[in-house]
Amino acid sequence: MTAIGFDTPGEADVLYPTIVSVPELAAGDVLIKVSHAGVNRPDVIQRQGNYPPPEGASPILGLEVAGSVVAVGEGVDDSMLGQKVCALVPGGGYAEYCVTPAGHCLSIPEGLSAAEAAAMPETTFTVWHNVFERAWATEGETLLIHGGTSGIGTMATKLAKLFGLKTIVTCGSEAKCDAARVIGADHAINYRKVDFVEAVKDITHGKGVQIVLDMVAGEYTPRSLKCLAPDGRLVTIAVLGGAKATINMAQVMVRRLTLTGSTLRARSDMFKTLLAQEISRNAWPFVESGQLRPVMDKVFPLHEAAKAHERMEAGQHIGKIVLEVNQ
Amino acid sequence: MTAIGFDTPGEADVLYPTIVSVPELAAGDVLIKVSHAGVNRPDVIQRQGNYPPPEGASPILGLEVAGSVVAVGEGVDDSMLGQKVCALVPGGGYAEYCVTPAGHCLSIPEGLSAAEAAAMPETTFTVWHNVFERAWATEGETLLIHGGTSGIGTMATKLAKLFGLKTIVTCGSEAKCDAARVIGADHAINYRKVDFVEAVKDITHGKGVQIVLDMVAGEYTPRSLKCLAPDGRLVTIAVLGGAKATINMAQVMVRRLTLTGSTLRARSDMFKTLLAQEISRNAWPFVESGQLRPVMDKVFPLHEAAKAHERMEAGQHIGKIVLEVNQ
Repeated sequence: MTAIGFDTPGEADVLYPTIVSVPELAAGDVLIKVSHAGVNRPDVIQRQGNYPPPEGASPILGLEVAGSVVAVGEGVDDSMLGQKVCALVPGGGYAEYCVTPAGHCLSIPEGLSAAEAAAMPETTFTVWHNVFERAWATEGETLLIHGGTSGIGTMATKLAKLFGLKTIVTCGSEAKCDAARVIGADHAINYRKVDFVEAVKDITHGKGVQIVLDMVAGEYTPRSLKCLAPDGRLVTIAVLGGAKATINMAQVMVRRLTLTGSTLRARSDMFKTLLAQEISRNAWPFVESGQLRPVMDKVFPLHEAAKAHERMEAGQHIGKIVLEVNQ
Repeated sequence: MTAIGFDTPGEADVLYPTIVSVPELAAGDVLIKVSHAGVNRPDVIQRQGNYPPPEGASPILGLEVAGSVVAVGEGVDDSMLGQKVCALVPGGGYAEYCVTPAGHCLSIPEGLSAAEAAAMPETTFTVWHNVFERAWATEGETLLIHGGTSGIGTMATKLAKLFGLKTIVTCGSEAKCDAARVIGADHAINYRKVDFVEAVKDITHGKGVQIVLDMVAGEYTPRSLKCLAPDGRLVTIAVLGGAKATINMAQVMVRRLTLTGSTLRARSDMFKTLLAQEISRNAWPFVESGQLRPVMDKVFPLHEAAKAHERMEAGQHIGKIVLEVNQ
């Protein structure tokens, strides 16, 4: 089968199409004929050599796909054969065929295109776990989202809105702020023009937000803590601005703040299966009803994976970048 | 009535006995004739001028007492009259009479002396909320307690043991480590002799602990995070080592750590009432059965409050320091 490989870490142009064996099915897995594969920031970091795949995972990039189940492993119900699914995959998404545990699949309802479906798993799993589980977001709360036009940021905006939260997002340009508002953000802050701490204070009339979803860390961490209301929660899902953060523990204590975070790829298959079930029950009805769609940036053919990475690294995308593998 | 006052913040010798009015009862309050009052670190910090009492609270020091209910405010059941109670109080404990919301009282069971009873509320409320609620401690987990021989540290050790947790404590001398082990700590680390991060690694066979209860902060914060196992929780209840902490957010994210903390005094009356009910249901049966007693350091007469503070500041105490007000 065709897949995207790279020999040594480096810039986007290290990626090239190559011919490799179709992956082998293990018990509990399904083999998916991939229609589309989502492109995610961890793919870029893995290509750069800074995020090695976990032991046993495919060396091929790609953490989410959409396609058809063409074979099932031992213990998997035959009824999955032929089903159109999107799935979180342990790696190997940039390829014509990909294996993943059967429990990591979600059905593709009518009206959701395969490209859109491939753009869903990473963002829905990440947002659901971090915003609704780790940060126990509830109706009526306000969520501050850094990187408001990223794949994660746009999905967080949409899910938050569907579940009765207000959203404030930060973006790096006026155009992105406009886009974020169209996507559904209640407020968008151009962080290059204003201090987001002051802007959040103004927007919330000095009260602060209940939750911050952050992928920057570094100097954003103490500033995000300043945006929190008492009992507020900061969830870190990437450290694009650097890992080291200097914070005020007296503020954490006095205002009863909580800092936490997580990465998705490292979690157990069982965790991901249970999370898929949560999402299927809670978020998927909105996909089925047409109320929840991913924000699509651009679809590239598989062999242009390098271009897809360049686009993500340039930071000009709004929403999800997807690779088309098989039509 | 006699109470301990001070005119300007300063060293322990600013405290002196003085005559003030008996406090007035508000609706929902009880008036307690104080037998004993517990001495706590926040009293010392308030005396130093660094922890002003919340609005409306008595300027008199003292956050916990034991005694008899001698009057009840509007809406409080008469059956409380004459009851022997210990209570969390909003301030004003270093005095012959003190008022507090009726819901902040716990009964004094037979076998618990009044001095011991006065030593219970601050530590049980603080440990219960921070260890069992904020850090959701569960049976089989391991708790690292900094300040193992403090009032909080000794109560945390005892409660953790009763609820099936293992404990590791840090102390500043071999004598304190010995005392901590007698009190019930499974392991005690002399932080002046060894790096507690390395010691915890050895004790847990590299696995780390699930929870750290910390009153130091500053450079202890990143070191405590290093002691945590994946999914571990760090709860900060004081910042005696300084508020500023530099931490690694990539570690927080990758190992899914949680940092939080709280102070007790700032919480609402309703919160404290609900917490008292939790403690009454969950911890008090062990007080009634005689399995849970506070570790008592020394009892001073009320007029020697300055000496009690000096003892706490010298850091040589093990367990609770209490003032005897009325016999």
